[in-house]
Amino acid sequence: MKVAIVMGSYSDYEMGKKTEGVLQEFGVEVETRILSAHRTPEEVRFLVSEEEEKGIEVYIAIAGMAAHLAGSLAAMTNRPVIGIPMKSDTLAGWDALLSTVQMPSGVPVATVAVNGMVNGALLAVQILGLKYSELNGKMKAYKEEMRKGVLDKDQQIREG
Amino acid sequence: MKVAIVMGSYSDYEMGKKTEGVLQEFGVEVETRILSAHRTPEEVRFLVSEEEEKGIEVYIAIAGMAAHLAGSLAAMTNRPVIGIPMKSDTLAGWDALLSTVQMPSGVPVATVAVNGMVNGALLAVQILGLKYSELNGKMKAYKEEMRKGVLDKDQQIREG
Amino acid sequence: MKVAIVMGSYSDYEMGKKTEGVLQEFGVEVETRILSAHRTPEEVRFLVSEEEEKGIEVYIAIAGMAAHLAGSLAAMTNRPVIGIPMKSDTLAGWDALLSTVQMPSGVPVATVAVNGMVNGALLAVQILGLKYSELNGKMKAYKEEMRKGVLDKDQQIREG
Amino acid sequence: MKVAIVMGSYSDYEMGKKTEGVLQEFGVEVETRILSAHRTPEEVRFLVSEEEEKGIEVYIAIAGMAAHLAGSLAAMTNRPVIGIPMKSDTLAGWDALLSTVQMPSGVPVATVAVNGMVNGALLAVQILGLKYSELNGKMKAYKEEMRKGVLDKDQQIREG
Amino acid sequence: MKVAIVMGSYSDYEMGKKTEGVLQEFGVEVETRILSAHRTPEEVRFLVSEEEEKGIEVYIAIAGMAAHLAGSLAAMTNRPVIGIPMKSDTLAGWDALLSTVQMPSGVPVATVAVNGMVNGALLAVQILGLKYSELNGKMKAYKEEMRKGVLDKDQQIREG
Amino acid sequence: MKVAIVMGSYSDYEMGKKTEGVLQEFGVEVETRILSAHRTPEEVRFLVSEEEEKGIEVYIAIAGMAAHLAGSLAAMTNRPVIGIPMKSDTLAGWDALLSTVQMPSGVPVATVAVNGMVNGALLAVQILGLKYSELNGKMKAYKEEMRKGVLDKDQQIREG
Amino acid sequence: MKVAIVMGSYSDYEMGKKTEGVLQEFGVEVETRILSAHRTPEEVRFLVSEEEEKGIEVYIAIAGMAAHLAGSLAAMTNRPVIGIPMKSDTLAGWDALLSTVQMPSGVPVATVAVNGMVNGALLAVQILGLKYSELNGKMKAYKEEMRKGVLDKDQQIREG
Amino acid sequence: MKVAIVMGSYSDYEMGKKTEGVLQEFGVEVETRILSAHRTPEEVRFLVSEEEEKGIEVYIAIAGMAAHLAGSLAAMTNRPVIGIPMKSDTLAGWDALLSTVQMPSGVPVATVAVNGMVNGALLAVQILGLKYSELNGKMKAYKEEMRKGVLDKDQQIREG
Repeated sequence: MKVAIVMGSYSDYEMGKKTEGVLQEFGVEVETRILSAHRTPEEVRFLVSEEEEKGIEVYIAIAGMAAHLAGSLAAMTNRPVIGIPMKSDTLAGWDALLSTVQMPSGVPVATVAVNGMVNGALLAVQILGLKYSELNGKMKAYKEEMRKGVLDKDQQIREG
Repeated sequence: MKVAIVMGSYSDYEMGKKTEGVLQEFGVEVETRILSAHRTPEEVRFLVSEEEEKGIEVYIAIAGMAAHLAGSLAAMTNRPVIGIPMKSDTLAGWDALLSTVQMPSGVPVATVAVNGMVNGALLAVQILGLKYSELNGKMKAYKEEMRKGVLDKDQQIREG
Repeated sequence: MKVAIVMGSYSDYEMGKKTEGVLQEFGVEVETRILSAHRTPEEVRFLVSEEEEKGIEVYIAIAGMAAHLAGSLAAMTNRPVIGIPMKSDTLAGWDALLSTVQMPSGVPVATVAVNGMVNGALLAVQILGLKYSELNGKMKAYKEEMRKGVLDKDQQIREG
Repeated sequence: MKVAIVMGSYSDYEMGKKTEGVLQEFGVEVETRILSAHRTPEEVRFLVSEEEEKGIEVYIAIAGMAAHLAGSLAAMTNRPVIGIPMKSDTLAGWDALLSTVQMPSGVPVATVAVNGMVNGALLAVQILGLKYSELNGKMKAYKEEMRKGVLDKDQQIREG
Repeated sequence: MKVAIVMGSYSDYEMGKKTEGVLQEFGVEVETRILSAHRTPEEVRFLVSEEEEKGIEVYIAIAGMAAHLAGSLAAMTNRPVIGIPMKSDTLAGWDALLSTVQMPSGVPVATVAVNGMVNGALLAVQILGLKYSELNGKMKAYKEEMRKGVLDKDQQIREG
Repeated sequence: MKVAIVMGSYSDYEMGKKTEGVLQEFGVEVETRILSAHRTPEEVRFLVSEEEEKGIEVYIAIAGMAAHLAGSLAAMTNRPVIGIPMKSDTLAGWDALLSTVQMPSGVPVATVAVNGMVNGALLAVQILGLKYSELNGKMKAYKEEMRKGVLDKDQQIREG
Repeated sequence: MKVAIVMGSYSDYEMGKKTEGVLQEFGVEVETRILSAHRTPEEVRFLVSEEEEKGIEVYIAIAGMAAHLAGSLAAMTNRPVIGIPMKSDTLAGWDALLSTVQMPSGVPVATVAVNGMVNGALLAVQILGLKYSELNGKMKAYKEEMRKGVLDKDQQIREG
Repeated sequence: MKVAIVMGSYSDYEMGKKTEGVLQEFGVEVETRILSAHRTPEEVRFLVSEEEEKGIEVYIAIAGMAAHLAGSLAAMTNRPVIGIPMKSDTLAGWDALLSTVQMPSGVPVATVAVNGMVNGALLAVQILGLKYSELNGKMKAYKEEMRKGVLDKDQQIREG
């Protein structure tokens, strides 16, 4: 089971590693790439053309501004494409959010929150979990851990 | 393979049938429900508790305003949850969009466009396609049809 | 008289203590909890199930992003639920504001300003004041103090 | 138990009657007024000055555009003030929403959704329910009815 | 000729002094006050009641969030009221802008840009200039200075 | 006393006549023009160049979209310029509002609400009232009429 | 001299013909196509690959929602690409505007107003006018006509 | 071949030099000016009146807030005008974006992203490239460099 993380620019790399880290925690193989819908459209196409051979089953696209990367991938593949809109310096991420989520009929992108690095990875795990049932147990454990994290904090503040 | 479509209110039903229709076109079994995160929270929980038994593999939540339905489902299940934000009379869908897509870390919702009835269904098909490979051929055909639809119109206007 | 303050995440705790402080100033008993609509839905339900026994009369929910906490509480209790939307890193609090205030018909949330930590507490005091009339005198004094604070500053700048 | 509904303009009257109707359904006494923070500020003050004598325990302010009515009431009374922002012709209710909910520290307004006529009334009932416990049973019944309404529709669509 | 500058809170004072400074530069008498539509409504009324005696001819209201100050003044006086919406920590000034500019029919507020401290003052000077023609020469000089400032910078960069 | 109303396009004319009507009700002389900052910049300049001769004391600019008309007038005259942003088909008036109100330092425009045809006129009357004191009595009467209109409606609904 | 107009969907065709009409009025040859960045990405590439042979010198892309069409063209050609964002049913054109104008560094799109069918064409004419100077005279005439249109209306209303 | 860069204020100068630098890299002659639509309207007109003599073929206008500079230039010239909206302290650039891009029919401005200093220059180069074909080779090289930059980073992260 393999996920391709594609980032639109090197400036997104630090953020993107967080997504990568979550996937690796679940034992999902990751191919992380820096490719741009606008600056390297051919390489984006080439990546998709190899998807079967490489075993890529889900894409995660990370991009800001007029973020076309997720939509470009979705136009070429039939695999699920997850889009993570990035906040940028000027319009607070509104541009990336709308450019990612408002895809026209026929070409869906599964969009998560602006800068939603962890949720992008978890959604990929849930999708893969349909086929690779071993992921479901791990996801259950992850959610339980999360739940415990909240409850620990809850207890901590209650005990002052 | 089975998808549960959950609508927050009967007023979304006409729209929701469009999503149902696309899934059925792909031969996906659908269970369509009207249940509300706020008005019938227990029935929502009950639906999820039966998910294994019923064979539900993906959820599609359709809701407007402060649309919590997709997030509520995502809090209870480890299956992928797709959220379709509905436009309502006052804030043009901005409320439903943000309430659906901006989920906090740990509980992702795969959000599509406001009123994106078709894309919600297609995303479910792509997700199911990882496991049920027969869907991939159908998806290829669907996209090819769509492509032809565009090209036919293109030819038509060029020939005047 | 007792208010339950529920925060969606430990990161809201510093802010939440401000709300707690105001309530305590008025002699209102407070139970402060960290519980999440999405990460610990069962514990949220459990809290509400004990409300009568514990004597909780008003809830204050503090949450950011797609803030479903106030709405989740409002779906389970008939007590008034006050929602304080929190500003987060990306969309400046617009997401939390709309997710809290735009509740569908039947399940109201009494929403105050983004990061309105003090107003959330004062609204709870005003609500409790209907029943516990001793609070009204304290509220009058609070407002008078506030008024004096403004007038002192006014005098100070007028005297240069 | 008595609620004062104040509308900023006669053009809001049809909408306001919906709020009135819900309150009367619960057996709450209602005084409905058309008064404007800007056009009749003195009459607004006069209304508040009589609040004790009249037995007004909660205010509901219904106003659009730069909606100052709820805030003006909240500046004068210590009773809870509920604000219902109205959608108007130009900015879709964004102006009324922000003018109502973003009150500065010290003067809270319990804001519900844009055009949230029913929720404004229900919130008033929940607030009064702290003191008049007979309302709680009615609220439980109301919510149960609402729940049944959803479940009836659910059954109806499932049976085709 | 006299302008009353009213600030909603002491935290706006540093900004407000900029407005005061511009007016004094033009030889306009200024009365600067810290008064709040919500926290000291009576003192606001009192100020207006003295306007004739004091010779106040224009008001400038400086306030943030749900900024009702300018509108409150405009409800009481027939003098022109200029509103300067202040940016605050959460919604970037959108709340103050809409609460100030979107006044309902009958009660206008002359609104300038968010944080438009200088423009608020200049607008007051232009208004006073109708009656006190000596101001027009000063305004001409001010604009000429401004024009020269731009042209100096232009020359400077052209000469490298 | 004379006001020049300038509309950016003939499509604004019906709306503009409402502004004209209010001014005439107050006995203010009006010169109504259709001139565009972008399509007839020279005629705009020519109008301003004649302002002294014609006796124009206040300008009201009515324009939509990237509404530069008010700002263009303000750049040429030292008279107060009132801007009325017009709602258009696409962005609901947000474009006209920001293009009118967010003027840079040094060139203020007195902005009223989107489509605020009446308020634009009333603001002009208030400004002229500083110099022509006969207008103040009329304004008082206007406000009193408005007040009575609200109170009549109030009485009417109270008497059912 | 030749311009390619590319529309993302047949539903934009009526609007697109307006753009075509303006170009033809100027004697510019037009190739109008219906092609989609997402549904027919290969045909978009094919069109660009023929641009030299066909003599296409400027592109105009007309698309709504997450409008990637202009950006996709700009990624492939070095010719100027003009983007016209289309208003759609849900978010009033905000999505198309941001998806078109907020292009990342290196791949500019010359964006005009939402639904700016005429301005898209005129911008193309101005660009072509650099090379084909005969267009400049026509553009001057066009602007003069436009100017006269405004002045005729101005005269008409002045003469009542 | 020559481009005039016009900045609305000296505070934009550092940003503007970035635009200048890109143009010079392509061998395009640049005249950089600080001129304001509102503070020095006559000098703006004078610049345009000399455009033929000076050989200016494209304008780039850089301005913030209610950014009328690009529109003012477009009203006077038939040359293509590129608008770069600048982010300012208060409304994050939304004001400048809408004031630049939402030009009314007849007067187009080729708008690029908020703070899009590089894209403004590249668009000018693409426009000039229609006439000066030597620029096309340079643009191809520029894009190739950009493409290589992305691919280098891609390789770098893949090799760890």
